[in-house]
Amino acid sequence: MNGLSPDLQTPCLVVDEARMAANITRMNTRIAELGVGLRPHLKTAKSIDIARRMLPDPGGPATVSTLREAEVFAAAGVRDILYAVGIAPAKLHRVQSLRAAGCDLAVVLDSVEQARAVAAASASAPIPALIEIDCDGKRAGLAPDAPQLPEIGRILHESRAELRGVMTHAGGSYDVSGTDAHAAFAERERLAVVTAAERLRRAGLPCPVVSVGSTPTALAARDLTGVTEVRAGVYVFFDLVMAGIGVCAVEDIALSVATTVIGHHHDQGWIMVDAGWMALSRERGTASHAVDQGHGLVCDSTGRVIPHLIVTAANQEHGILALRAGATGPLSDMLVGTVLRILPNHACATAAQFDACHVVPAEAGAAPVIWPRFGGW
Amino acid sequence: MNGLSPDLQTPCLVVDEARMAANITRMNTRIAELGVGLRPHLKTAKSIDIARRMLPDPGGPATVSTLREAEVFAAAGVRDILYAVGIAPAKLHRVQSLRAAGCDLAVVLDSVEQARAVAAASASAPIPALIEIDCDGKRAGLAPDAPQLPEIGRILHESRAELRGVMTHAGGSYDVSGTDAHAAFAERERLAVVTAAERLRRAGLPCPVVSVGSTPTALAARDLTGVTEVRAGVYVFFDLVMAGIGVCAVEDIALSVATTVIGHHHDQGWIMVDAGWMALSRERGTASHAVDQGHGLVCDSTGRVIPHLIVTAANQEHGILALRAGATGPLSDMLVGTVLRILPNHACATAAQFDACHVVPAEAGAAPVIWPRFGGW
Repeated sequence: MNGLSPDLQTPCLVVDEARMAANITRMNTRIAELGVGLRPHLKTAKSIDIARRMLPDPGGPATVSTLREAEVFAAAGVRDILYAVGIAPAKLHRVQSLRAAGCDLAVVLDSVEQARAVAAASASAPIPALIEIDCDGKRAGLAPDAPQLPEIGRILHESRAELRGVMTHAGGSYDVSGTDAHAAFAERERLAVVTAAERLRRAGLPCPVVSVGSTPTALAARDLTGVTEVRAGVYVFFDLVMAGIGVCAVEDIALSVATTVIGHHHDQGWIMVDAGWMALSRERGTASHAVDQGHGLVCDSTGRVIPHLIVTAANQEHGILALRAGATGPLSDMLVGTVLRILPNHACATAAQFDACHVVPAEAGAAPVIWPRFGGW
Repeated sequence: MNGLSPDLQTPCLVVDEARMAANITRMNTRIAELGVGLRPHLKTAKSIDIARRMLPDPGGPATVSTLREAEVFAAAGVRDILYAVGIAPAKLHRVQSLRAAGCDLAVVLDSVEQARAVAAASASAPIPALIEIDCDGKRAGLAPDAPQLPEIGRILHESRAELRGVMTHAGGSYDVSGTDAHAAFAERERLAVVTAAERLRRAGLPCPVVSVGSTPTALAARDLTGVTEVRAGVYVFFDLVMAGIGVCAVEDIALSVATTVIGHHHDQGWIMVDAGWMALSRERGTASHAVDQGHGLVCDSTGRVIPHLIVTAANQEHGILALRAGATGPLSDMLVGTVLRILPNHACATAAQFDACHVVPAEAGAAPVIWPRFGGW
């Protein structure tokens, strides 16, 4: 009994409910210990069923990466959402529609032009905005000491818009390994937003929300003085990148792609499966790690890791499994038709290739269920 | 006038209808000159509207990479389909359902086990199968001189199944550049399947279909004696990988992702846009090329290439645009809100991230239209 439906059509996305529940509990416990709020990022899950398990309350708070996510989760009853990607002015009418329908949706920006656009769009009803702060030079955001910070704050505060606070994300935490390194990035996040918040307050501006977060920093942070909330998302499933940088164990990964053996190249030691990059995604986030997991690490149909068997190459609908360089092992039992599971490098990217999750229930003997997923913008 | 709807929400997928039509005409003309049949591969398009423009006849023939594609296109009237990924026995009931509904769906296999499974599933009604031949050691298939080839043929022919022929795909043609190199791969494809077909015929077995194809080999082949049909798909859009190996010009690429500028990192020379890897895919197929196009080459909103501006980094929903190393140029006019288009490394991977195509009509002044796309298995 592997918990999978016997008539499963592969490739398909599999969620191990027990592992997912443990991952959610771990994050909730850690954030409670830190004494701040948790605003789960729903970009990894993109599922109402999973969001309900992640959110502190059915109404939120939540973080999203697209307005489509905001629209779907708002329709499902989430009432407090942060859209955490810099706002494009042409999207503000959708923000206003969601707000008019009762969802407290806030936007993010880091420029005078965006602040002016939000101020203009707030003429009919106020739009709350957080100013994005750059803590590690990896992506968007203003430096905490950027000269235009108070000006942006004033444009928002002195118009009908609402200056709600500051936020940052240490994407750089994914590039380092170990709790100490992640704790150092957590402190960079904290220092960046606390510095920015203090500058705004010294300029006589409000800054009620001070928001940080990434899964590695959320779990490693030691002190979040001055921070009001933490955002994180990939912890719900974890993945091989998170395992590779020491944030979780491989055995914590709750997401996999079920696949079927469709052939062999015996002379090359290859096993062909029906999950290629269309199912696994092209994500190769472990390529730079000490242990390169190829396009994914292979498990049997029950989710038990098969040591040293990885996806070494991926075509659109073909995956090629082979032992890691130098490894040996008996693979002769993998006949055509054998079902395997592949752990993903990056849960967000792999999950995005599927419109449903096949759930292995936490309760032994419970019937498998399917949770719909969505994508788009 | 850029042909895009003024209320477009980015990121979204854009198809230039005139370029697409020219690409289709180019392939049709070339295959007609070679005197063989064309069985367009619909895995790149995944759109009924585009399939109608690619197919020789509304009924087919067509190639697909998933049974979902077979089901969608069969429901839209395509009656002759090859499912060109090695069959998993657990999928044969879906093959039988489609065949019972009037679609002549054929499967592909390369092992005795699969042949036995197809033979067993043919007890109620015959399933036609092609034997996959390996011409370049890149993926699935039997060597043309594999000892088990006649046995597999006999299992199919002597059961209620149907031995329909042989097929191969030179994935290796993507790794070489220039017409001569692609013509050499076309000859490898031809020689592999013609050799296998002759072995089957010498063993007293039928082999009516002898199928080859990839976009580079289809366009470069000089002689296809013994071949009955060519399969190709990515030619409908082309992409930066195809341009990089000399199969098309950058100006032929009919697919792009429309995106909006959402910010800047002026000190780093970065322009932030709202198309990250979720929109562009993680595909980096030009990384090994003479000209590395990063995560995509940037055009203005009309589709005109902006020299040396590429997507140098991609987060989930953020793309970072910057000039190629060493290049200089004025980028100061790209204010927040500017719409750009990004040409993809690999059309199949990028298109798969979207559920619709926004079409720039070939006819000047015609209203933009939307063609739905689908995914899944």
